[in-house]
Amino acid sequence: MNLDSLYSELTLKTNKKLVLLVLDGLGDIATPEQGFLTPLESAKTPNLDRLSKISAQGRMTPVAPGITPGSGPGHLALFGYDPIEFQVGRGVIEALGLGVELKAGDVAARANFCTLDGKGIVTDRRAGRIETAVCEELCALLASKIKKIGDAQVIIQPGKGHRFVVIFRGKGLEGPLTDADPHREGKAIPEVTPVNPKSAKAKKAAELITKFYEQALPIIKDRKPANGFLMRGIAHQPKIASFEERYGLRAACIAVYPMYKGLAQLVGMKKIEGAQTISEQFEAYLNEYDNHDFFFIHYKYTDMHGEDGNFDAKRKAIEDLDNALPLLLEKRPDVLAITGDHSTPCKVKGHSWHPQPVLLHSEFSGSDKLDRFTETGSNLGSLGSFEAKHLLRLMQANALMFDKFGA
Amino acid sequence: MNLDSLYSELTLKTNKKLVLLVLDGLGDIATPEQGFLTPLESAKTPNLDRLSKISAQGRMTPVAPGITPGSGPGHLALFGYDPIEFQVGRGVIEALGLGVELKAGDVAARANFCTLDGKGIVTDRRAGRIETAVCEELCALLASKIKKIGDAQVIIQPGKGHRFVVIFRGKGLEGPLTDADPHREGKAIPEVTPVNPKSAKAKKAAELITKFYEQALPIIKDRKPANGFLMRGIAHQPKIASFEERYGLRAACIAVYPMYKGLAQLVGMKKIEGAQTISEQFEAYLNEYDNHDFFFIHYKYTDMHGEDGNFDAKRKAIEDLDNALPLLLEKRPDVLAITGDHSTPCKVKGHSWHPQPVLLHSEFSGSDKLDRFTETGSNLGSLGSFEAKHLLRLMQANALMFDKFGA
Repeated sequence: MNLDSLYSELTLKTNKKLVLLVLDGLGDIATPEQGFLTPLESAKTPNLDRLSKISAQGRMTPVAPGITPGSGPGHLALFGYDPIEFQVGRGVIEALGLGVELKAGDVAARANFCTLDGKGIVTDRRAGRIETAVCEELCALLASKIKKIGDAQVIIQPGKGHRFVVIFRGKGLEGPLTDADPHREGKAIPEVTPVNPKSAKAKKAAELITKFYEQALPIIKDRKPANGFLMRGIAHQPKIASFEERYGLRAACIAVYPMYKGLAQLVGMKKIEGAQTISEQFEAYLNEYDNHDFFFIHYKYTDMHGEDGNFDAKRKAIEDLDNALPLLLEKRPDVLAITGDHSTPCKVKGHSWHPQPVLLHSEFSGSDKLDRFTETGSNLGSLGSFEAKHLLRLMQANALMFDKFGA
Repeated sequence: MNLDSLYSELTLKTNKKLVLLVLDGLGDIATPEQGFLTPLESAKTPNLDRLSKISAQGRMTPVAPGITPGSGPGHLALFGYDPIEFQVGRGVIEALGLGVELKAGDVAARANFCTLDGKGIVTDRRAGRIETAVCEELCALLASKIKKIGDAQVIIQPGKGHRFVVIFRGKGLEGPLTDADPHREGKAIPEVTPVNPKSAKAKKAAELITKFYEQALPIIKDRKPANGFLMRGIAHQPKIASFEERYGLRAACIAVYPMYKGLAQLVGMKKIEGAQTISEQFEAYLNEYDNHDFFFIHYKYTDMHGEDGNFDAKRKAIEDLDNALPLLLEKRPDVLAITGDHSTPCKVKGHSWHPQPVLLHSEFSGSDKLDRFTETGSNLGSLGSFEAKHLLRLMQANALMFDKFGA
């Protein structure tokens, strides 16, 4: 029997409030240069400390041993979806990141302007890294000239620098397709083809993109240096059971950055807009408390400073979060999980494979008698080591959302 | 999606040096008679202690909960191959243990001399446990008379006492076959048959072995007491993707005992010969440093003394290893893992199912702030509990050999 079916079968309705507070890239490693401390260990966190004393802790493998996840797989796992089973193409992630509201079946591509010579050979894959304003103008021009191809709607959204995304919204389309990108200069743009040659839907999507090129290239052919464009990671938004279908939970997302709103939307969470600071995010939670069962609250700065390798700034970001925490606890959720979507160690200056610590508090979490929430402490916790995709089930269990299995 | 395909897809080339130091049977259990200490805990290990302070630790299940592995599955797991998926027949392991260089497709059998009566009934399954010299002479006699059967080459290699192995090297052969062994006295030697009756290759191998019996038995029929022989565990060497194919790593094996050289050879490691002591093994590593990316260094004595139930000797073996360790660290590898292939607790006097401790050191391992490398300490480590087959993936991650998964 499939484990997901078992969980579904056992699911009860309990009207509890669950909060998943994600400190992006929270996990870190203790190194000699850092005095054998992580930012979380070195931060002053009186509010997390208080919570720790009445919580369980554990250590989560984000995807599989040694695998470093991007934000997509990292969050899908936290949302309880197996990140290897539910793979979301780069084009889709990029579109979500630019705030495009995708629908199931939409085919999305990461694109960027490039320079072509008279024979259509790519001479600069990034068109001299044109400025964002130029990119925006070119995207607006293309969007004004190409609104539809056949019965499919075309959506063009500029990004930073030479980057943009193109979305094809129509019936019977799917990815993945091969790249319209030679991946080096001195070659022509290859035609896209279905990765699975047996897929009629992917064939239709490939034909659409070929027609898009036929119409779009003449529009910009006299521009310099951006007289062409490449497309990669062409994929469709997969059909994913929504949070409500899967867990029976009305879920809301309180995030600041578009990528995380997009990932939440992918699983059918309602976006609560407007909050810019973590205090405002917690206030939004208080205001919306009665309207939802599950709140995903995303805090970006731990990851951002980890990426910069800035230990002090990452520690400060944790202290700022801790400082705001009493606001969240004004209406204490029945179940509260605090964790990261992965580690972003200052030493690595990027996402990593290191298991992230997790704190789980509820009336039934028990206490691991740990004075603090830290990487080292979480190694000792009662939750043990487990895959991040199981956290949501543990949250449900703590909300008494599962009936007994068997007699 | 298969996890191995995912790892393959993400693999990068980084030119790092990885060392897997296996203290065979390292893991042990603390018992009241031992003063609640394991040999590792009671040993003086200043060099391991120093390393521990800058390393991560964890506890590995060799195969699956409660399963006690032989050396084959134990090492295959450490080499990153699922020991349940990649099963290697006993005949193959035995041949590897006797130093025979097998090729993919070779069919190998464990054999031993026995005593038959006038009607071909087995009267002593071990031929009175003849001496090794007699076995060697009988094997030489058989080998001189039977070099080929049909187009298949026959290789006969004596072992200890009444034991030997027979290898059939030809085209289109495979195992497994049923045993040419009644498994008790008072019965005739049964004819071998394919375990899978649909395999034409196994049928061919079975016919070959029947012919081998027809030719071999008359040669020794007048010998006493060894006038017959039994064959068991008849299997072929499976085709296994080599270390280089699987991980992109040029691997070398520095082992003293033939079994471990054989297991390393099974996955395509290059054998570095000549070293007899652990210091000589570490020196061989230093000499070969530039020629390989991955070094498997095997230390036998922890297992040997565990098998004897000799606590003090096992502790001493650990101290000897620790004493030699600075030599290895003269050219510190980028990633160093120190562990066992399983536990061989003195109390058990044999291999066991108990998870073995593992220490992992790299620039990115972080520190678990543990003063020593011990069974009890490793329970507190950031690597948590995991299956031994994942260790190699963690080593690769620590060598920054994996690209990010997803955007």
